[in-house]
Order: sequence, then structure tokens, then C-alpha cells
Amino acid sequence: MHNFSLLHDDLMDGDETRRHRATAWTVFGPAQAILVGDALATLGTEVLLDAATTGGTSPTDAARAVRLLNTASRRLIDGQAMDVAFEQRDTVTVAECLEMEGGKTAALLAAASALGAVLAGADDRAADSLQRFGEHLGLAFQAVDDLLGIWGATEVTGKPHWGDLRQRKKSLPVAAALAEGGAASRELAEQLADPKGRGEESETELAARALLIEKAGGRAWTQEEARRQHTTALAALDEVPMPDVVREHFVALAEFVVVRER
Amino acid sequence: MHNFSLLHDDLMDGDETRRHRATAWTVFGPAQAILVGDALATLGTEVLLDAATTGGTSPTDAARAVRLLNTASRRLIDGQAMDVAFEQRDTVTVAECLEMEGGKTAALLAAASALGAVLAGADDRAADSLQRFGEHLGLAFQAVDDLLGIWGATEVTGKPHWGDLRQRKKSLPVAAALAEGGAASRELAEQLADPKGRGEESETELAARALLIEKAGGRAWTQEEARRQHTTALAALDEVPMPDVVREHFVALAEFVVVRER
Repeated sequence: MHNFSLLHDDLMDGDETRRHRATAWTVFGPAQAILVGDALATLGTEVLLDAATTGGTSPTDAARAVRLLNTASRRLIDGQAMDVAFEQRDTVTVAECLEMEGGKTAALLAAASALGAVLAGADDRAADSLQRFGEHLGLAFQAVDDLLGIWGATEVTGKPHWGDLRQRKKSLPVAAALAEGGAASRELAEQLADPKGRGEESETELAARALLIEKAGGRAWTQEEARRQHTTALAALDEVPMPDVVREHFVALAEFVVVRER
Repeated sequence: MHNFSLLHDDLMDGDETRRHRATAWTVFGPAQAILVGDALATLGTEVLLDAATTGGTSPTDAARAVRLLNTASRRLIDGQAMDVAFEQRDTVTVAECLEMEGGKTAALLAAASALGAVLAGADDRAADSLQRFGEHLGLAFQAVDDLLGIWGATEVTGKPHWGDLRQRKKSLPVAAALAEGGAASRELAEQLADPKGRGEESETELAARALLIEKAGGRAWTQEEARRQHTTALAALDEVPMPDVVREHFVALAEFVVVRER
């Protein structure tokens, strides 16, 4: 499902590379790339069903796992649809942006964090806590992703320079900067409302726009948001009893998400 | 899933209308149309899972049903990928065409024919027979679809005139005509191997190509194939014990598939 989302995302964004590798649609064409994503999604469901026939999972738990993945897919699709719809708009609120990112990213990490436990027969309470861990971790991940999308080093992220700004992506730093309401915020809003020059801005203009977002507090707010979500994720993890060695892995994963540079 | 397939198919074919209505991608854009198809696919799985929580279906049968639908999705995706790949080729064999149509169409009807019985706890033998009924019915359906794609009345089908020939679609009548090997067959092969004029043929040229396919026996072979698949489907249906009134519905459905004009 991760690949399914990424494939659609790459295609919609027109990204020709991701992490220094050519994206699937540039190699196989858009039609086949979309089909590969769909195929991976069906394979995911099959793996979960197989746990009941070849693993020790009960049919009831396999059905729970399929529902968990399926619900995540629906939220992911919904988030992606919101992202596409936002492209037609000049501005979005922080709440709308968080809802979109909750679907596009957090739903996936929530399901991924709980699936193993569900297959092993965990009760609903433990599964819910693990889902909340993944949900908040996903929001932290996306906040960091949005920061890297503007201020990340291209040679590290493998994404095109100023790509998010060039596409006028409605990411968290932008939404937070627009919400701030000061002089820099208002100038940013004016630029984004101007249909002229869309997609044709120079490197200098885009660098100036990144500075406006920073001046309006969008960068600091998003950094703080990533830390808040990280803390909330760890609190959810504390609710679930598990061996120390397993908890250390979860904590290290959460740490990686907020300190990564790509 | 039907909609999911149709949405992708419409988009890949560039069809702007289907059954006299605007296709989804022309109204909502390609990105949102693809997402709607994906969303419908996840809803399908959810409906099957709900049968175990709100209906009288056991978790084991719900998991069987999800697997049935999921396997059909995989075959459908495979068939669609073959169809896309065939666009790059001048010719395909009848066997390749049947395999592609088995995935693109028959897998769907096979799953649809057996799903209700599986949810009601039918044994594997009955489910297998119903799947075979749907499989052969699907192949009959696609054979008729291919015939309508060339010789159907546009005002009835709602598809563009000569659309399949203009796109050089590798449908059954074309594959059968190419396999025949006579004079008309060889002339057809020459035309299809010629990159010149692709997509720019006049109505007269396309009408002449339809006549070539008919002369090479492609039309008659496909009509006969539809009848063969229809007969095999009914034989599979005979293996399953069911009330007469239910059987009559299945038989009427099969009859509709082969006599339809749209």
C-alpha cells in the first residue's frame, strides 16, 4: 500500500525521481505504474489472508487485519483526493492540511503499527493504542516531510529543488504561515492568489517565498508540531505492555522519523 | 470492482463517453477518477467483511469471499496490464487475447457469480462450479463486446464509431482474422504493421478494415466463440443444485449476455 500511494503521488506530482531513483511511471508509463500500485494493494490483502491458512492466525483475526488495512486504504485514498483537490485552491487551513495528511500518511503508519499485533491476536485495546502510536508518528513524519520539501537538501532528499513551492503544494508550513496573519503571511497569501507565474517562478523567487514562510512562523510551527506528535505517539506506546527490546525498536523508529534528513 | 476496472479502461482508452454518459475522468479529472475506482475497490472488500459482523456469515466464509474478490482483482489488473502492453504490438495470438480477456472480464464475472454462494456458506465444489459458470459467461460477454466494438451500432452502444479499430485494439475478431492466414488476413496484418496513418485513418479506411476482418473469418469465429462459451457456462451451472427460480435467473442473465446489442 505504501508503494500504491507513492506511485499515485509520484504520478500526480509529476515527480520523475524519488530518492535518487527514476519513478515507476517514467520507466513503465503511467497506465502500468497505476496497475502495479493496484496489484501491490491486492497482494497486501492476500498476505494477511494467508496468515490464517499458513500461519497461526484465526480467521477472525485475519478478517480484523484485512479490515484494518482496508480502512487505512480508504483513508489514504481520501487524503490523496483532498491533496489533489487542494491543488485547485489558493489556500487551505491548518486543520484541513492536518486532515489531509492524517489520511495520506498517518492512516498508513497507524495500520502498519497495529497489523502485526492484530495477526498475533492482540485485544482491541492494545491494537487501538498501537494505531494511535502510528497515527501520531505518521503526522510527525509528514510534518518533517513537509519541512524537507521546502528546506531539505536536494542532494540528500533526491527530490527536485523547491519542488513543493513550485507546485504551490498546500503543506503544513504554508498553511501555518497563512494562518499567522502578519505582514509576511499576507504577502505570501497574495503571491499564492496570483495566477500569474504559476510554475514559472525563478529559483530566486522561490527562495524568497521560502523566507516569507519562515518569517510568518511556518517553519517553526511545523518543527514544533513534529515534536508534539512525536511525544503523543510515545505516550500511546506506553499504554501497551511489551518486552523492552520490542519497545526499544518502536522508540528508535519514532526517533528516526523526526530526525531524518531525507 | 467493475467500476474500478471500467474507470481505468475508459481512461486508458481515452473514451470520453460510455453508454451515452460522460466518463468519470472527463468530469472529475484523471487523478480523482483513478482514486474513485480505488475507493470503490476498498468498499467492495468492506461490504464482504461486514457480512460477518452484521449478516449471518462466519468469519471463515467472509475471509473466503474476500480472497475470492481479491484474486479476481489481481487477475483483472493482470488482464488490464496485458491489454495496455498489447497496444505496443502489431499482432497478438488468439490464445494471448483469450488470456487477456479472461483476466479483464471473466475473472470479474467468475467472482460475482460465486460470491453470494460463498457468503451463504456454499461448499468449495459449488463455489468452483459457479466460478466456472461466470468465467465462461465472462468470455462470452467479452466476445460479444469485441463484436459490438467493431460492428455495433454507435447510437445503441454509446461508443465512438470504429473506436476499437481506430485504436488498433487487439480484440478477438482481429486476433482470429490474423490467425486465419488467407489473403484478407495477410492484408490486415500489413495494415496493422504499418506505423503510418495510425489513429488518422478515415471512416472509409476503417470500414474497409472491418470488411477485411470479416473476410478473414474474424467475425464468424468470434460469434461462434461466444456461443461455445455460453454453452460451457450453462454446463457448469448444471453441476450446482439450486431452486428452479434461481436457475432461471442465471440462465436469463447468460442469455442476455450473448444477445445484447449494447
